[in-house]
Amino acid sequence: MLIHISFCPWECAGGRREEREALKSFEVIFFCVRLSFSVCVCPDRALVRVQDLTPDKADQLIWLRARVHTSRAKGKQCFLVLRQQQFNVQALVAVGDRASKQMVKFAANITKESIVDVEASVRKVEQKIESCSQQDVELHIERIFVVSQAEPRLPLQLEDAVRPDGEGEEEGRATVNQDTKLDNRVIDLRTTTSQAIFRLQSGVCQLFRDTLTKKGFVEIQTPKIISAASEGGANVFTVSYFKTSAYLAQSPQLYKQMCICADFDKVFCVGPVFRAEDSNTHRHLTEFVGLDIEMAFSYHYHEVIESITDTMVQIFKGLRDNFQTEIQTVNKQFPSEPFKFLEPTLRLEYTEGVAMLREAGVEMGDEDDLRSEHLARTYDTDFYVLDKYPLAVRPFYTMPDPNDLKYSNSYDMFMRGEEILSGAQRIHDAQLLTERATHHQIDLEKIKSYIDSFRYGAPPHGGGGIGLERVCMLYLGLHNVRQTSMFPRDPKRLTP
Amino acid sequence: MLIHISFCPWECAGGRREEREALKSFEVIFFCVRLSFSVCVCPDRALVRVQDLTPDKADQLIWLRARVHTSRAKGKQCFLVLRQQQFNVQALVAVGDRASKQMVKFAANITKESIVDVEASVRKVEQKIESCSQQDVELHIERIFVVSQAEPRLPLQLEDAVRPDGEGEEEGRATVNQDTKLDNRVIDLRTTTSQAIFRLQSGVCQLFRDTLTKKGFVEIQTPKIISAASEGGANVFTVSYFKTSAYLAQSPQLYKQMCICADFDKVFCVGPVFRAEDSNTHRHLTEFVGLDIEMAFSYHYHEVIESITDTMVQIFKGLRDNFQTEIQTVNKQFPSEPFKFLEPTLRLEYTEGVAMLREAGVEMGDEDDLRSEHLARTYDTDFYVLDKYPLAVRPFYTMPDPNDLKYSNSYDMFMRGEEILSGAQRIHDAQLLTERATHHQIDLEKIKSYIDSFRYGAPPHGGGGIGLERVCMLYLGLHNVRQTSMFPRDPKRLTP
Repeated sequence: MLIHISFCPWECAGGRREEREALKSFEVIFFCVRLSFSVCVCPDRALVRVQDLTPDKADQLIWLRARVHTSRAKGKQCFLVLRQQQFNVQALVAVGDRASKQMVKFAANITKESIVDVEASVRKVEQKIESCSQQDVELHIERIFVVSQAEPRLPLQLEDAVRPDGEGEEEGRATVNQDTKLDNRVIDLRTTTSQAIFRLQSGVCQLFRDTLTKKGFVEIQTPKIISAASEGGANVFTVSYFKTSAYLAQSPQLYKQMCICADFDKVFCVGPVFRAEDSNTHRHLTEFVGLDIEMAFSYHYHEVIESITDTMVQIFKGLRDNFQTEIQTVNKQFPSEPFKFLEPTLRLEYTEGVAMLREAGVEMGDEDDLRSEHLARTYDTDFYVLDKYPLAVRPFYTMPDPNDLKYSNSYDMFMRGEEILSGAQRIHDAQLLTERATHHQIDLEKIKSYIDSFRYGAPPHGGGGIGLERVCMLYLGLHNVRQTSMFPRDPKRLTP
Repeated sequence: MLIHISFCPWECAGGRREEREALKSFEVIFFCVRLSFSVCVCPDRALVRVQDLTPDKADQLIWLRARVHTSRAKGKQCFLVLRQQQFNVQALVAVGDRASKQMVKFAANITKESIVDVEASVRKVEQKIESCSQQDVELHIERIFVVSQAEPRLPLQLEDAVRPDGEGEEEGRATVNQDTKLDNRVIDLRTTTSQAIFRLQSGVCQLFRDTLTKKGFVEIQTPKIISAASEGGANVFTVSYFKTSAYLAQSPQLYKQMCICADFDKVFCVGPVFRAEDSNTHRHLTEFVGLDIEMAFSYHYHEVIESITDTMVQIFKGLRDNFQTEIQTVNKQFPSEPFKFLEPTLRLEYTEGVAMLREAGVEMGDEDDLRSEHLARTYDTDFYVLDKYPLAVRPFYTMPDPNDLKYSNSYDMFMRGEEILSGAQRIHDAQLLTERATHHQIDLEKIKSYIDSFRYGAPPHGGGGIGLERVCMLYLGLHNVRQTSMFPRDPKRLTP
């Protein structure tokens, strides 16, 4: 029986293998192969999700689309593990009423990672299948089709990519190094660890936006191609722009401030930021996602700090309450302690932090970059704020501390001892801004439209920029920011 | 009485004018001036919002921070209109118990757009104040401080910037042309029209994401700096990348597809896309915000169309139900008909559309770009889909129509007769993709990691990219996409 292609709701070409060959140029959608008989199956059929395969479906005949995670032939049987994202189920093809010897052989030859459609009956099992997420059932396959065939040699094995460091070393089991993972990111992203990381990352963005929207913030979209470097001239990528050249924004800084001058009062944005920094460290990327906040305040810039720390606390709580499965999945490969935070958030002044570190024997100058796990340990929190940084180490638009011009109304926030946010009260007076820009040797002509924004009334305001990848890395206790960037960019990596 | 600055919770310097001068270098936060007596006011004081000034606050003494929208002195009185975003209220300073003659003079001299703090009592008015959003009350000012002073000459007047075209021409009233508005965007964004447009835009993004999240989509972040042009070599911006060069992504296309190959199943992203197109039209920008969708489907790419059209319908409904104030505010300046849509969404084939237009006397070739208000009028809907575009006019990764290779499984979506989305089923077979890329003369080496993504099992999938600014423009019936981009970029505009 061959259903004519025009009947096929897939708009694919099907039929017997020879017909499929003849129709090759049309056969663009599905690579359908069925061994027992040749029919193009394009049905009005519901596909069941692997995660829904539970004992209450016992003895039902269902259709399923999944990847072949593993396959193992054993005499007249072939055992498959079928996978959908982080869920998997055992399946069996056995010679008998429903399957021929050829079909078992065909099933055994399907390459790992191929996508298949199977028709199968769900069977309860007596003994739990420990190796699968669906432990109480297995599938008895009656029909199997290859939807998309994987090449036989995979550049990496998923089970190697999720193996914790050191585990199985004695048995000679491999782990996969990071560059191999990133070079073959599409396969690496299929692991349970990657699936969990990026679902959690999606959650961070959603929690960030939902919390701020509830607080009355408005989402803005700021341009990434700009005519002047937003943070001074260093570390900026140049773009050819028709007959002139432009830069990639190092942050939405100038634009989110302009929105404050334009009466949006409280704004946030989520978007890429670009740093042409030749830093090859575990925590630097040349392109990362900034979660940016800017708000007018009434009387004191600590109102801004409170808004931001409360937003972070809401994110931490949301992750803890809604992403336990993901957190535990990642922990299996990369064990770490649960993330600890206090309410209200611990806030120390920079000088206090320095004094504490000196007391603890850490040598540092007054204006050194301050990051340490020491403070976290002392206060038993993985999240804290350091306030009042030295003016000299902050960008030109930072408001000086009116009590001591050596310092500034600026702050960093830390997770597990590493910086995830830098922020400050901003100068909202065009004259002072001009003075500070001049002091920093910034070409005033280039930031004219920015400085002009403050000439027609500007409220006092402040904000900060959070690095999404760092937040995910540190929340999960990971050790490289490339693990929490889907397609990371660093000085040495531009692909995939 | 002078409160010492260290007591000041604003951390500002205050005091008498002469002291303020002496402290000038410290006086970085607030420009506090009070006429009657000199005291730094840094209180534990709640600021009331203009929109909350209603008769139930009558006779209360309140504090308010707002802009001076207009001011008019009249003998011993000065009438001010104080504004916060789209809300404003009338205020009065009158010589008497609470204000000196000097204070009235001081108030009258405050420049328009300056930000002031006022202490005032709320008074019910007998006759509605038609010119203000708060029509039932006015403020009797007792104290007034300048928080941030605007320069006396504004580059444009807000009342001119919101005047409908043609209105008041006889009285010689000006309107402001678009370039002047965009050159002074920070002021132009303060108008009620701009405030409404960008609050609605924020709403579009939120509705887009919320709808898709409910449908089980995962948000992804894709890189903007890429090693190969995603849509072929034309119209791409080049970036200097350390010792090599790279491109700015013309869409997240390749990456969202790679996420599908990586088992994320259904993904969306919101982010900038870049087109180095030298098009100076009402609907082209060189940088705009893409709302992108990609999903695996079970049997037919129309499942994708249905997901996208349903998402659009949810956005239309959300705007209609939650943004009426904003829509009506924009309509005051730019009148337009309410946006009409059908359920289910109208879907026509491209050839049907062409035939209809020919019948209506519009001359066009079989592969011409099809956009017309004719179809919208015929079916009484401002939103429809054209399906099955000629293969030749679509990108290399578009799935050909298996029934007629001249066409493809691709579609555009239109609002008020203009394209807002382009999408298709994508080729998910590495071999066919290679053939099509070769046909389009694309350097295979450059898209190797993309093509390789399909070698290890890829589900059939499709998606589309929506232009945020176009959706906002067309939903509101505006006529230039620069009106719905906060800081638009075109071949001639890189600032602000």
